[in-house]
Amino acid sequence: MLAVQNIINDVRSQGDAAVVDYTNRFDGQNYTNAEAFRVSPDRLKASWDELSPELQASLKTTKARIEAYERSILYQDMIGEEISYVYHPLEVAGFYIPGGKALYPSTVLMTVVPALVAGVTNFVVTTPVFADTSITFAALYLCGVTDNVFAIGGAQAIAAMAYGTETIPQVDKICGPGNAFVAMAKRLVNGDVAIDAIAGPSEILLYVDDSIPVDAIVYDIFAQAEHDQAARTFLLCESQSFADKIAARIEALLPTQKRRDIIQASITNNHYSIVDTREHLIAILNEIAAEHVSIQHRDQDEIVAQVQYAGAVFKGYYAMEAIGDYVAGPSHVLPTGGTARFSHGLTSNDFRTANAVINIQHATYDQIAPAGELLAEAEGLYAHQASIAIRKAESPYDEK
Amino acid sequence: MLAVQNIINDVRSQGDAAVVDYTNRFDGQNYTNAEAFRVSPDRLKASWDELSPELQASLKTTKARIEAYERSILYQDMIGEEISYVYHPLEVAGFYIPGGKALYPSTVLMTVVPALVAGVTNFVVTTPVFADTSITFAALYLCGVTDNVFAIGGAQAIAAMAYGTETIPQVDKICGPGNAFVAMAKRLVNGDVAIDAIAGPSEILLYVDDSIPVDAIVYDIFAQAEHDQAARTFLLCESQSFADKIAARIEALLPTQKRRDIIQASITNNHYSIVDTREHLIAILNEIAAEHVSIQHRDQDEIVAQVQYAGAVFKGYYAMEAIGDYVAGPSHVLPTGGTARFSHGLTSNDFRTANAVINIQHATYDQIAPAGELLAEAEGLYAHQASIAIRKAESPYDEK
Repeated sequence: MLAVQNIINDVRSQGDAAVVDYTNRFDGQNYTNAEAFRVSPDRLKASWDELSPELQASLKTTKARIEAYERSILYQDMIGEEISYVYHPLEVAGFYIPGGKALYPSTVLMTVVPALVAGVTNFVVTTPVFADTSITFAALYLCGVTDNVFAIGGAQAIAAMAYGTETIPQVDKICGPGNAFVAMAKRLVNGDVAIDAIAGPSEILLYVDDSIPVDAIVYDIFAQAEHDQAARTFLLCESQSFADKIAARIEALLPTQKRRDIIQASITNNHYSIVDTREHLIAILNEIAAEHVSIQHRDQDEIVAQVQYAGAVFKGYYAMEAIGDYVAGPSHVLPTGGTARFSHGLTSNDFRTANAVINIQHATYDQIAPAGELLAEAEGLYAHQASIAIRKAESPYDEK
Repeated sequence: MLAVQNIINDVRSQGDAAVVDYTNRFDGQNYTNAEAFRVSPDRLKASWDELSPELQASLKTTKARIEAYERSILYQDMIGEEISYVYHPLEVAGFYIPGGKALYPSTVLMTVVPALVAGVTNFVVTTPVFADTSITFAALYLCGVTDNVFAIGGAQAIAAMAYGTETIPQVDKICGPGNAFVAMAKRLVNGDVAIDAIAGPSEILLYVDDSIPVDAIVYDIFAQAEHDQAARTFLLCESQSFADKIAARIEALLPTQKRRDIIQASITNNHYSIVDTREHLIAILNEIAAEHVSIQHRDQDEIVAQVQYAGAVFKGYYAMEAIGDYVAGPSHVLPTGGTARFSHGLTSNDFRTANAVINIQHATYDQIAPAGELLAEAEGLYAHQASIAIRKAESPYDEK
């Protein structure tokens, strides 16, 4: 924690010079100045042009579905006679796009598109991608984000977005996953700027009936397991015989998986249970409050209606998590480790802020002022009382 | 920070015993066990019965107005054909109600009523009030919160709610202001449970025209200043002569104020400016993003329409902040220190969580699966690809 705090302090006090220094030291670059890590609009466009037409079409389909969904849930201003509640997009949104072992253009779409739908117009993106072109850059180009993209990563990138440097604009909120240093830096700057969440290991809770094809569920488990070694699955089923079939097919299919090393490690985190009653099932679902809850069961409508706490609920055989990770629409940035009990997945509304506008009229003032005065007095806040009381005279200007 | 972390660790490992111990040590109590700090329903009722009918009526008026407003802004489920977004109240909400130099029943109403409107049914309240009866207890009684009220405070109260003890139920979210130890404890448990926000010193930005009665504005400034020594006002006006009048009346009226010592100390934090252009004004408003923005000006409609970032906006002479602190309706728990640029005041919606329910049908699956498969492959997540691809066979059960 101290090391990360030192990086943040250095970026705050020395700006670009510290970002250059830490990036050269930790990421093996030879940047001489901050302009060297700016990703030009040309590089972003070249990344897009380089993609196959099929992959371009897939990214466009995904973007369109995310947009349509996010528009459908975007809050509308509540305009009341005397009190309104109004929304405003954040002025500047910052994104951290991981770029280590793998590149995740889907994460670009799942974080940037909600911000676009919210009405955000100023974007800052940091990503530790040092290649000339990349599918991450291509996804940014598709989103129209071509200014203020910087090929930097780690805690120094988070600090630069939180406090700004000569080159990197200060943002109001930082979104996106990262490694342990990134997560710690986000935790430390939280409050000075907003952050989306601190993501823990990914998890899925599957509840399936005995009629579901075993191999489909095995691939759902493998899909969860291939993320990283800390990923895990809670599999709830109705009979031991079905659980045994799953176990047997996991063993049979594992050796054929391309990411079998990661899968083999992470499936040791899995929990398999037989659930006897519906009450027990619902209690488990809401207690675990898993990031992904996948219900593939003849009674799925009834069960899902009782789920209160989940990152996202995937109902039915054709709504497996993997399709939700890419093209269903809702963001795949979801609360983990039971935090769905009190937090929700990223949406367009998370890129807005809101405030009440209170416009009490003279007649209403006359009705409610006595209550306000009495409470102020009871709390010993006498100037509050006077500030209310003094307005018993007429209004100074032409107000209803 | 270390001291607070130690308190939290002790409460986590030793439960009630640590809460009793710290409360006796820091708050001068002689509790022998945890039942000693439970506030009985009888004590809560006695506190209510003891209030004057006028004060009871004032609390009821306030509660009714908060309820009406919060209902008007409560989010409704979005039920889509294949994707829905649904809300659920938090299972257990926790409240910290300060009880030091003064008692603030308005804070009880401004935090508990939004949770009631959200549909929360389980409440835990901690408050360092050790009297037999109090107006804080009365406000809780009015809200129907009579179980799990505990007369404890400080970091140990926050830790007890965050992790639970034998006597104090674990909560999902902790709301309410407190001293520096409480604020630090909230910061440290954040993530294990949700917290509302870390409140900084209170502030107001006033923009007034020259026709507003000078004394009304002076009392608005005093009302802000009487909170505590760190409170502050930004006063923006149109002419030096008006600013001079304000300064003269502050000097004249200060000696007559009951809380003059606090006021005298905190008005030294104030900033007074003459604003020349509308553009300049709007830029200042959105840059400062004050907790309270009070616009009392002949062009107030036009100006307020351009405010993007504020804790709450008070428009007009009869919507002074003091009335908003008590009876307007919106919660007075608001973001401070510029954090309104990325966060909002407490509402009923903050006591709910939400999740998408994704129910992709077979026909939609056929349309979007290829895009999902291609992106999974591009990201090297081959089991994701297989989990999507394997469902090209027929559905196992009767699903549309």
